[in-house]
Amino acid sequence: MLKETTITEYLIHSLKKVGIEHVFGIPGDYVVKFFSMLENSEIKTVGTCSEQGAAFAADAYSRVNGIGALCVTYCVGGLNTINAVAGAYAEKAPLIVISGAPGVCERDGDYLLHHSIRDLNSQLNIFKEVTIAQCVLDDPQNAPYEIDRVIDACLKHKRPVYIEFPRDMVDAKCPVPLQKNKTICKKNNNDILNEALKEAVEMIKAAKKPIIMGGVEIRRYKLENEFINLLECTGYPYVTTVLGKSIIDESHPQFLGVYMGKVGDPQICNYIEESDCTLMLGSLMTDTNMGTAQLDISKTIYATADQFCIKHHYFKDIDLKDFIVRLAEELKSEQKEVLFKSEIKTKADFVVQPENPIKVTRFFERLNGFIPEDNFVICDVGDSLFGSLALKIPKNSAYLGPAYYTSMGYAIPATLGVLIKKPELRPIVIVGDGAFQMTGHELSCFAFYDLKPIVFVLNNNGYTTQRYLKDGKYNDINNWNYHLFPEIVGNGLGLEVRTEEELEEAFVKAQNNTKSFTIINVHLDKYDKSETLSRLTSIFGKKVI
Amino acid sequence: MLKETTITEYLIHSLKKVGIEHVFGIPGDYVVKFFSMLENSEIKTVGTCSEQGAAFAADAYSRVNGIGALCVTYCVGGLNTINAVAGAYAEKAPLIVISGAPGVCERDGDYLLHHSIRDLNSQLNIFKEVTIAQCVLDDPQNAPYEIDRVIDACLKHKRPVYIEFPRDMVDAKCPVPLQKNKTICKKNNNDILNEALKEAVEMIKAAKKPIIMGGVEIRRYKLENEFINLLECTGYPYVTTVLGKSIIDESHPQFLGVYMGKVGDPQICNYIEESDCTLMLGSLMTDTNMGTAQLDISKTIYATADQFCIKHHYFKDIDLKDFIVRLAEELKSEQKEVLFKSEIKTKADFVVQPENPIKVTRFFERLNGFIPEDNFVICDVGDSLFGSLALKIPKNSAYLGPAYYTSMGYAIPATLGVLIKKPELRPIVIVGDGAFQMTGHELSCFAFYDLKPIVFVLNNNGYTTQRYLKDGKYNDINNWNYHLFPEIVGNGLGLEVRTEEELEEAFVKAQNNTKSFTIINVHLDKYDKSETLSRLTSIFGKKVI
Repeated sequence: MLKETTITEYLIHSLKKVGIEHVFGIPGDYVVKFFSMLENSEIKTVGTCSEQGAAFAADAYSRVNGIGALCVTYCVGGLNTINAVAGAYAEKAPLIVISGAPGVCERDGDYLLHHSIRDLNSQLNIFKEVTIAQCVLDDPQNAPYEIDRVIDACLKHKRPVYIEFPRDMVDAKCPVPLQKNKTICKKNNNDILNEALKEAVEMIKAAKKPIIMGGVEIRRYKLENEFINLLECTGYPYVTTVLGKSIIDESHPQFLGVYMGKVGDPQICNYIEESDCTLMLGSLMTDTNMGTAQLDISKTIYATADQFCIKHHYFKDIDLKDFIVRLAEELKSEQKEVLFKSEIKTKADFVVQPENPIKVTRFFERLNGFIPEDNFVICDVGDSLFGSLALKIPKNSAYLGPAYYTSMGYAIPATLGVLIKKPELRPIVIVGDGAFQMTGHELSCFAFYDLKPIVFVLNNNGYTTQRYLKDGKYNDINNWNYHLFPEIVGNGLGLEVRTEEELEEAFVKAQNNTKSFTIINVHLDKYDKSETLSRLTSIFGKKVI
Repeated sequence: MLKETTITEYLIHSLKKVGIEHVFGIPGDYVVKFFSMLENSEIKTVGTCSEQGAAFAADAYSRVNGIGALCVTYCVGGLNTINAVAGAYAEKAPLIVISGAPGVCERDGDYLLHHSIRDLNSQLNIFKEVTIAQCVLDDPQNAPYEIDRVIDACLKHKRPVYIEFPRDMVDAKCPVPLQKNKTICKKNNNDILNEALKEAVEMIKAAKKPIIMGGVEIRRYKLENEFINLLECTGYPYVTTVLGKSIIDESHPQFLGVYMGKVGDPQICNYIEESDCTLMLGSLMTDTNMGTAQLDISKTIYATADQFCIKHHYFKDIDLKDFIVRLAEELKSEQKEVLFKSEIKTKADFVVQPENPIKVTRFFERLNGFIPEDNFVICDVGDSLFGSLALKIPKNSAYLGPAYYTSMGYAIPATLGVLIKKPELRPIVIVGDGAFQMTGHELSCFAFYDLKPIVFVLNNNGYTTQRYLKDGKYNDINNWNYHLFPEIVGNGLGLEVRTEEELEEAFVKAQNNTKSFTIINVHLDKYDKSETLSRLTSIFGKKVI
């Protein structure tokens, strides 16, 4: 006989089983009962100022923890997360979105229900565009099956999923599903793999200047060790994409730098263009990563979780992990000596020019000496992202930035997500003034939850990236006193710096401030820009104008 | 021969033609070229901190101006407005959403384009759920036709529409459409109208206690004069729904008050329940308006722009305006004497209890004496909305609140929308602390555009409405020093009040501060609530628990 449980119990049990200890979100009347049960479970709820903040935080939590979850009310809550959930979809952050909804018994009433739009499927239809699987828990009989199905899809595809939970189903009794003997559905595709491998190995062995490019899927699918093993079996140099930055320790001797086509470091771009075999592993083919370069597909091997391609021909059903593991085996007898020694010089000791105004390029150069080991660097978009390509992420530290979807306002709430998982850390957070005005109020959560990141607001008085695409008054924004935010939220250290000397002092004060978060308002000239941004605007500007 | 123009010129021309003088939004690379052309036209662009703020502002601008517009970049911009646009859909605010998008020639490239999700139709598909008509301007030949089609739909249905503008089409030449001799498509439906009218008139004449209920469509379709004429022809008392509050001057002698079912004023609820003929004009049948009452449909006549129903039978194709006009004609010979004199007492002069802590009920009582004529009262949700039902909106003033969709965080950006249209006004804005934390940073725009509203933050330390539905730690939020916001945004007067005496002083200071906006942090007990909220939680609480 089947055992009985309730849908809520089963859902909470399922969240715990996949490793979720915290759920981000804001309740509302359609979800508050489930929220209350969640709060009384072993899972903790984490509130934010707005639902978008909760979604960005859950996304970052997912990137650190392997999976994240979000719980919101119907429409006014859920629709506020669409942009952030779309970002998680685009950048492959597995996220479980749970939304309250009108009860099954309310749905046929005479009245329009508050928070609803066109009809009661509108929110579900919208989420279909930004999630990989969806369910509505409106039938207790199959609710556990549906929960299993969407969470499995979340883990498999590393994309968000949507669970709609009508409020009158929260207590509904449902059967406990039988313990599944997970049939391994993986196809026996040795023939395909062998064929692909043979061709890849021949191509690699014949190459004079092979290079490996690691992307974000190496982290998402936890293939870091397999990736390192391949590097060390071959001795080939490697780069990462921006989204894949810091997938493994950037102090690795074979690390050449971050590749971003012609927008990125020209030395690295040249190296890739001259390579007669680029082995791309787990990297997404995005315009910002590669769109500006003349990547000759005839000289690439491209392997991701979803696609496998040598030159211009595709293979189906090749597992990314299997391929990396087998490739390392095939190549290890071939070449053990490290072919490449990094030519990228570590910046000479930074000499402070005390009275000079801070420039974005020098800010990032200086920051290289400030990032501790075992920590995070979290960057927003614009020059916070472009400038950060020059950062060398130290041992056991990791880099987080929305490098492909590039939604402004990611960094501050993302920092909350990271710190809820790892509250002992003090990440370095870099955010532009425009992005800060979108979601910066979420640093209220740093005060509320007693978290201590160090936030640099790169204050260049507006949307500087866009000034170089097409300038106009629409690029000007109100110049806030960002460093006074601690007074609003009741905690935190606020500092304001204009010169290199003041920046040095701020570094010291921030490091010594172990009691609260620190926010540093870094004044920059409104036309100051990083080298990456210079290259980007000269290339992308043409598309705009 | 057809004259030639460009898609951009035609779009800007069309916006101007329907009365749009301002477009709210934030540019991004997919839309910045159009933004720049917009800025160089007669239409002004208005920037905000976030796209959601822009959308709420455009919604409020629409409610004041008759139509509003919003311009954003692809996905990271557009998807950030979905919740606000859904609110405009639900509450019938006509809004033109223009989104930049990848160029037609970029769409078939080898790379994933930044800001994109599943495919390049994702954003369009999402907007289909929250707009009444959509187009993609990817073909210059039919672009003008498409622009006309969606803007016509916007005006006709009073709902948002979506225009996607690929960035390489901005300069594209297109034909100027022929001047349309707008064929009036209105059906000759006199037979239907006469039949409905005859039945309605008989029902009304036979009634002993008829009452009229006015809803938001009276304002949306500009039927205020027709409505007043009907009132004065009949002498019947009238109420409004919450969303319809202040459709006409609340000092009208036949005005009974705002109807909100059992949640609202019990006298008014009783009056409606006892009525043998309730004539509902332009009011949406929502749960918050009516869901709690025992409205006997056999005793109602229900007419909106989309539906017409007497008792339980429907009529098609009846125009709301025609019906109101003809009904007034039929009834004017019948009854001219005013049947009803308001029994709702105007509150006796408010006596300040100087040392008493401020209570929400007394706050609203006192506020009644503070609202000037020719002004706006703009309320957010929660007790800001519930409490405000007790406000009597003076002559030529209007009330604005998201009374049906009830998305928190509407009021501050909505105030921007109102003031961009009417910068000389100083509206009274009432917002809860929870709602303020969502979008309150948009008051930066008051400083940036030199606007001077008076903002009351009803600070009850969390989500008080929800405390009464289901209390838990998730209802606690960080207690900000809301009155210090002027220091962040560089302008404004901030005040903090706890007692009635301090509130009195704040009223005076706010009135005297004609140079900037004023924000008043009104401390309330976290369990203090309005009478409406008391009734609401005792009724709706059951659905939650």
